[in-house]
Amino acid sequence: MKLKPLGDRVVIKVKEEEATTASGIVLPGTAKEKPQEAQVVAVGSGELVDGKKIELEVKVGDTVIYSKYSGTEVKIDGEDYLIVRQNDILAIVE
Amino acid sequence: MKLKPLGDRVVIKVKEEEATTASGIVLPGTAKEKPQEAQVVAVGSGELVDGKKIELEVKVGDTVIYSKYSGTEVKIDGEDYLIVRQNDILAIVE
Amino acid sequence: MKLKPLGDRVVIKVKEEEATTASGIVLPGTAKEKPQEAQVVAVGSGELVDGKKIELEVKVGDTVIYSKYSGTEVKIDGEDYLIVRQNDILAIVE
Amino acid sequence: MKLKPLGDRVVIKVKEEEATTASGIVLPGTAKEKPQEAQVVAVGSGELVDGKKIELEVKVGDTVIYSKYSGTEVKIDGEDYLIVRQNDILAIVE
Amino acid sequence: MKLKPLGDRVVIKVKEEEATTASGIVLPGTAKEKPQEAQVVAVGSGELVDGKKIELEVKVGDTVIYSKYSGTEVKIDGEDYLIVRQNDILAIVE
Amino acid sequence: MKLKPLGDRVVIKVKEEEATTASGIVLPGTAKEKPQEAQVVAVGSGELVDGKKIELEVKVGDTVIYSKYSGTEVKIDGEDYLIVRQNDILAIVE
Amino acid sequence: MKLKPLGDRVVIKVKEEEATTASGIVLPGTAKEKPQEAQVVAVGSGELVDGKKIELEVKVGDTVIYSKYSGTEVKIDGEDYLIVRQNDILAIVE
Repeated sequence: MKLKPLGDRVVIKVKEEEATTASGIVLPGTAKEKPQEAQVVAVGSGELVDGKKIELEVKVGDTVIYSKYSGTEVKIDGEDYLIVRQNDILAIVE
Repeated sequence: MKLKPLGDRVVIKVKEEEATTASGIVLPGTAKEKPQEAQVVAVGSGELVDGKKIELEVKVGDTVIYSKYSGTEVKIDGEDYLIVRQNDILAIVE
Repeated sequence: MKLKPLGDRVVIKVKEEEATTASGIVLPGTAKEKPQEAQVVAVGSGELVDGKKIELEVKVGDTVIYSKYSGTEVKIDGEDYLIVRQNDILAIVE
Repeated sequence: MKLKPLGDRVVIKVKEEEATTASGIVLPGTAKEKPQEAQVVAVGSGELVDGKKIELEVKVGDTVIYSKYSGTEVKIDGEDYLIVRQNDILAIVE
Repeated sequence: MKLKPLGDRVVIKVKEEEATTASGIVLPGTAKEKPQEAQVVAVGSGELVDGKKIELEVKVGDTVIYSKYSGTEVKIDGEDYLIVRQNDILAIVE
Repeated sequence: MKLKPLGDRVVIKVKEEEATTASGIVLPGTAKEKPQEAQVVAVGSGELVDGKKIELEVKVGDTVIYSKYSGTEVKIDGEDYLIVRQNDILAIVE
Repeated sequence: MKLKPLGDRVVIKVKEEEATTASGIVLPGTAKEKPQEAQVVAVGSGELVDGKKIELEVKVGDTVIYSKYSGTEVKIDGEDYLIVRQNDILAIVE
């Protein structure tokens, strides 16, 4: 199953944060910070501005920082994805 | 009876979720997640942007993921449908 | 007395729902669902978008599904009508 | 004293509702429905849309249905008037 | 001291209402209605719409009806004035 | 240290109100009205309207009346300034 | 790791305020004012206005005054950064 997001929407796969800190301590669930990094899995056809389609800035495969708590969670083939608007993506990690 | 939605509206038929999980367990009503998949039954004439009609991205027959709790429920010939704005449709399932 | 609605407004006559169900049972007042079907009685001169008048999509005589609780009730010659914006009309029944 | 309303504003004179019903019963104050009919007394120079002046649809002398509770009451020469935006006028009675 | 209001702003001088009614009764402070008439003392350079300056409709010397409770009170040389947007002026008294 | 405000922003220096009234009475802190007069210290590059830069109406050195409680206080070299949008400036004192 | 902010966004590094006042007194944590100065680390591709990209006014390396409590905190390689919209930047310090 594949998703084709509409308009300025983007499907992202949130990166699992590691349950072990840099210093090697295993963190219990609640001590982990909510991750903000994700990978772009699919992008929409573009943003509609004044009747013109503006291509999105993010591309499939980009690692991005997104705004916490934004978007809609969907489950596809047993995996969790997030559908966000490009506006909820803050930056691309290079 | 047939519906012709206005403007950027779309008539969708929500997919019945199966009451049996992948592992074969029958789920009682409240344990079932609210379905988010639907099939497009009719599409409007387009979105009006700056006086120009922009054709909708979804087509009749598309399977779509839509935003939960959006739209208006209507009953036509005894069947339930949902009239949503295209903006409430997040992605097309391919 | 005749009404000429302004701009993108439409005068509709709500269809009386029948007080008898398909199976012939007479329903008391509160068991009846609020009707959502109406007939278009008069249409405005059009929607003003960027200084251009865009003709309305609905026409006099159309049966339409409208958004519940929208519009303003008016009584003309003893009959109840509803003045709604075209945006509150979801679909035309064909 | 005469008023020249600004922009898309209209001065209307609310029609006194008759204190007697069709069947001849005299109604006390609170039983009377708030009137919604008014006569246009003066119209503004037009609505400013994208830097263009769009002439108003209503004309002096028109009987109109207006949106209840809208507008600002003014007293001129001892008489009450209402200054409303054209957008608060729903329809012209012909 | 003179004020030059910015953009679509207008400096007005509220008319003192007379403390005596038509029938000659002197009204105590609280019985007086809040006045809504004012004289235009200075007008701004115009409203900025889509990058174009649109000249204001009111002129210095006009007597206007303004929307109650709008604007900002300023004291200049011991006298009270009100700076309002032209949009808060409902009509010109001719 | 010098500030270059962005866009339609303006740096102003609020005028100290005198703690003595016209009649020579020295006012304690709370009896003083919040001052509304300020001097323009720096102006931004202009307002962006529809992709065009519109030069600001206020100039460095202007004495202006500004809207109370607007803007952000900043301390530069030990002195307090206020960064406001031009829209929060009501009028220029000439 | 490097960040490329999207659209009109800017990555800034907040300046550590010194824990010692001008008069040499060491301040405990809560007595310190929230800093408002930051250095621009990365800028987005520009603001989208009416389908046109408008280049940002701030540049990498600029010291800026930003609006307190705006933006989203991100941790990159163990360091804290703030991603803000250019609109949350009030002025450039020269």
